[in-house]
Formats: sequence, C-alpha cells, structure tokens
Amino acid sequence: MGEFDLIRRFFKDQSRPPLDAVPVGIGDDCAVINPTAGMQWLVSSDMLVEGRHFLSTVAPERLGHKALAVNLSDLAACGATPRAFTLALSLPRVDEAFLTGFSRGLFALAQAHGIELVGGDTTAGPLNICITVMGEAPRGQAILRSGACVGDDVYVSGTTLGDARLALEAFRGTVNLPGEDFTLARQAMECPQPRVALGQALRGLAHSAIDVSDGLVGDLGHILKASGLGARLEVDALPRSAVLRRQPMALQRKCGLAGGDDYELVFTAPAAVAAQLAAAAAASGTAITRIGRIEAEPGLRLFDAQGQTLDLGLSSFDHFKS
Amino acid sequence: MGEFDLIRRFFKDQSRPPLDAVPVGIGDDCAVINPTAGMQWLVSSDMLVEGRHFLSTVAPERLGHKALAVNLSDLAACGATPRAFTLALSLPRVDEAFLTGFSRGLFALAQAHGIELVGGDTTAGPLNICITVMGEAPRGQAILRSGACVGDDVYVSGTTLGDARLALEAFRGTVNLPGEDFTLARQAMECPQPRVALGQALRGLAHSAIDVSDGLVGDLGHILKASGLGARLEVDALPRSAVLRRQPMALQRKCGLAGGDDYELVFTAPAAVAAQLAAAAAASGTAITRIGRIEAEPGLRLFDAQGQTLDLGLSSFDHFKS
Repeated sequence: MGEFDLIRRFFKDQSRPPLDAVPVGIGDDCAVINPTAGMQWLVSSDMLVEGRHFLSTVAPERLGHKALAVNLSDLAACGATPRAFTLALSLPRVDEAFLTGFSRGLFALAQAHGIELVGGDTTAGPLNICITVMGEAPRGQAILRSGACVGDDVYVSGTTLGDARLALEAFRGTVNLPGEDFTLARQAMECPQPRVALGQALRGLAHSAIDVSDGLVGDLGHILKASGLGARLEVDALPRSAVLRRQPMALQRKCGLAGGDDYELVFTAPAAVAAQLAAAAAASGTAITRIGRIEAEPGLRLFDAQGQTLDLGLSSFDHFKS
Repeated sequence: MGEFDLIRRFFKDQSRPPLDAVPVGIGDDCAVINPTAGMQWLVSSDMLVEGRHFLSTVAPERLGHKALAVNLSDLAACGATPRAFTLALSLPRVDEAFLTGFSRGLFALAQAHGIELVGGDTTAGPLNICITVMGEAPRGQAILRSGACVGDDVYVSGTTLGDARLALEAFRGTVNLPGEDFTLARQAMECPQPRVALGQALRGLAHSAIDVSDGLVGDLGHILKASGLGARLEVDALPRSAVLRRQPMALQRKCGLAGGDDYELVFTAPAAVAAQLAAAAAASGTAITRIGRIEAEPGLRLFDAQGQTLDLGLSSFDHFKS
C-alpha cells in the first residue's frame, strides 16, 4: 500500500464529507476553511514521540485519541471552539492493525467535538505524530496565560489530577499498583479528556488559563510569569482520585503537583464569579476545585491543610531534561 | 538548555513582535490570528524526515529554508497569501550549531514572505520537522486540482525542473557531476524557491494547479484524476537547466518527468489568457513554459519533439515505495 492509498483508506474515508464550513478537505495542496464572521483563529501544534509522550505498550486506538486530545486541550485552555485539524504521521512501515486502531481512536474523538481532519502528510520514518488544531473564539475573548489578577481564585478541573503520573511510575516499576488501580490510572494517562466544553464556558469568566501538560506547578508557573504575579497553593485541596488516595501522601503530592500529562485546565477567576463558575462547570459536566489564590508577590508558595508551608523541591516535566 | 529556553533563544526572539494581525504568537497555549474579512483560510502540513526528505549532509540553514519552502509551495499551488506557520521539531539533542543555522534559514525565508512563526512544539526524539502553514485567499478563488478543462494549456514554472533529482542521483553515486554542476544541482535540491508570487498571480487565470513535489508526471496526474480528464505532454518542451542539458537525454527526461522535490507549479489555463499569464509570470519574476494540453481522454500521453509517442514507464515518488 502506497502513501496515497494509505491516506484514502485510513484517513480520508473516515473524515466527514465536505461541509459549507470546509469546502476543501483532504486531497488538495491545501484545505480551504471558511472562517466565522467576528471570530479570531486559534492555532496550536503538538508532536508526539514514542518513549517520550507515549509508551510502545499503548493500544493504537488510545494513541489516536491521545494525539488529538492533547491538541484539543490547548484549544480548551484558550476557550476556543475547535474547527479543524491536520495530521502528519511518520511510520516505520504501513501497519494495518496499527492504522485501523489509531484512526478509530482519532476519529471517535474528532467526531465527539465536531472537528474535521482537513489535511496532513504521511511518510516513512521513526514513529512520530504531529497534529495541528485550529479553532475560533469571539474577537478579544480568547483566554490567555497573562490575564491573572491579584485576588483571583485558582482552580483546577477534573478529579484525577496526578493519576497519569502514577501510571507512568507503575510502568517504570517505581510503584506497584493493584490491577484495578493500574487500569484506572492507565486510562487517565492514555485517554485524557480535553476540557473543551469547560474551556468555552470559561470565556468571560476566567482571567487566565493553561492546560496541565507538564505538571500543575510548572504550568501554573507559566500563568504567574506571564501575569507578573505569584500565588499560594493549598496542596491538600488538590482533587485526588480514590486510586491516588491509596498511595502515600508524599507520592500523592508529587503526582498532583508535578505529574504531567494531566490535560486538565488550571485557571484563575475573581471570587465574584464563583457561582457562575460553578454553574458553568456543572453545565459542561466537569468538576472544578478551588486550590489557591493569586497574590502580588511573585513565586508560588505551597501550604498544607494545617496552613504550614511546604517546600517539596518540585519542578515540571521538561522534554529535554527528564 | 531546557525546552522553554530553546524556544525562547532560537525561535521566539527571532520572530517578529506581535502585530495587529497576530495578537498572540509564541508563548501561550494557542496563537491568536485575526482573519482578513472576505478571505478563506488555507492550511497545509508537511513533515520532513532525515534520509527521506533531506540528507544528513545538508547544511542546517538550508534545511530550515527547505522545511518552510515545501510548505509555502503548497500555499502557492492554491494561490494563497501566506499568513502564519507553526513548527514542531523533534531533535536527538539540543545542538546549538544546528539550531542557529536552522533558525537562520527558516526565518530568512519567513521574513521574505512576511509570515510569522506563531507556535509549535519541541521535543527530544529522532530528527523530525513538521511545519503547518496558514494562508488566505479571497472567497472562492483558491486554485484547486479539480478545475482543469479540456483545451487548457499545461504550464510548469521555473527553469530547473529535474535538477533536484539529478543532485540526488549524484549523492547516490549513480551519476557523476563536475563540481560546478553539482553545486548548482544541489542548490536546486536544498534551496527550492516556493512560487508564492506566481501562485497569487495565477488567481483568476489558472483553472487548476499543484506543486511538483513527487515528480511532474505523478503530480500532473493528480490534476487529471481530480478533474476527470487527460493530457498530452510535450516532453522535449520541458524547461531544463544548462546543468541538466549536459546529461544524456534519457536522464534528462527521467529527472524532468519523475524527479520529485522540484517545488515548481504545474498549472492549467485556457489559451485565451496566455498573454495575461505571460504578464503575470513576468511580474512575479518567474519563468513559465507551456508543456502540454488537457484532453478529454483520461490518462497522460507523452510525445517527443518529433511528435512520436514515448512510453518511459515512469511513476512518481512515493514515500512508502521508493
């Protein structure tokens, strides 16, 4: 099977037929997309490499899901409505079982978000997946990292923060998880759910947002740096799954604060909109938890449930360091 | 140097400051871009892998140029005006000499086309370069593969069609080029010039277009298939450089017809606009040559200068076959 057959069989046929919104999809030199009047375009690219962003043990269907999920998570963090994506794929060989599973997971998530694969590239080479997502937000309403204000509450979404890191440690053999716990933690790692609905609901409410891909401390740090501010974080307020709660407290804190691969949203909003936030979270079916407050003094200060300061010496995941 | 330092040092600082057109560039979860009223968006992604799209001997500066050039070539083929691009880069290690050269070549071409790097990703892994370009064209004016009409003239741009393949054969050791010829052919392979100005000038004149990345025969074949038509091609009318003309006729034909990596435009247009085409080509500083005609009968028929049919058994470059 050659390159064009591969595209036709695994990718083009599973994409939706051309719509008014996307008059030209896969199959020309470029895709053609109709922007929506009054909207700005939001764009993000993520590249996934075996052994660094996923393990060779991942099921192809979950890999297809995750490759798109981590990109949709960037749109979610900005409050964007997803519109389209491109996929560039380097494969050591044409592996039909892999491609069948990969494309199934990819398109299931794409269809759940009404987003179309509009183009891309396939080539032979070491396994590498690069997706670029495009979305829209009303002019001036994209949520940025730089908008945090003193006094803002800090929130995080979801209930499984840290589980992905716990699964990674289980794969690395540094922790031993009972079967059911491993299954659940692994699902958090391999099947993150991008918080797209929540992100859109945060437009006009949140002052700043980012998605947690490299660990809460590091990613919240990007908000603080971009906003020129600091924060206090109530470490024991972090949402933890039942799986994580069965681990020692030090590991719970490490996974929650510096885990990485969570794809939850961390965002800041003034206390005055707390009730609206709760309603927005409920409407989008996503739990949110208040975990701290923005302060004028730069830096991030960690506190436990007794109000004692913690110095855990944590840093975030860096693709060229760890 | 970590991931964020790398982005800041080699990519963010060399990008232009935010403009009205791109209110948010590198440094947030997404870039934010203001679309131009009345325009459609055009998007294309290309992934470059060592040993397949470039040789390990290429200078980093030329590789940076080429990685963006092959993407701009896709926008050119659709007649789009380039707007922005993302870069995802997987690198075995942080190699400062490589990154300095690569980013210099990349930004020189980006600045020549007034296009901004708005985001992307860097990771450790086997060398892989994925660029996604975004551009605009007035609504309904993008040039597609499917628009060819019976009687259209077939044109190709440039004067070095086939030189890139000649250089590749020299690297492979199947042809022996004298020093100066090798330098020129290698430049064609490593520094293709995307025909962006010509592509925009073709809007409203050309019925169909594609860029020659996999070889003229194969890429013209995509136009014919998408348009449901055929063509006759005057093989000896193909533009050839002085370098290529010094090679045996069989090799000249092979390189010109099935070379690949040319990044010239092949396009079709009615005879009635021939004078306007000539003026558009001159205004954009790009040579164009008439090389054939679109016919109703499907398939591509090759003729030599004496009007004799040729059967050269050529096929195009396929990344999973050759």
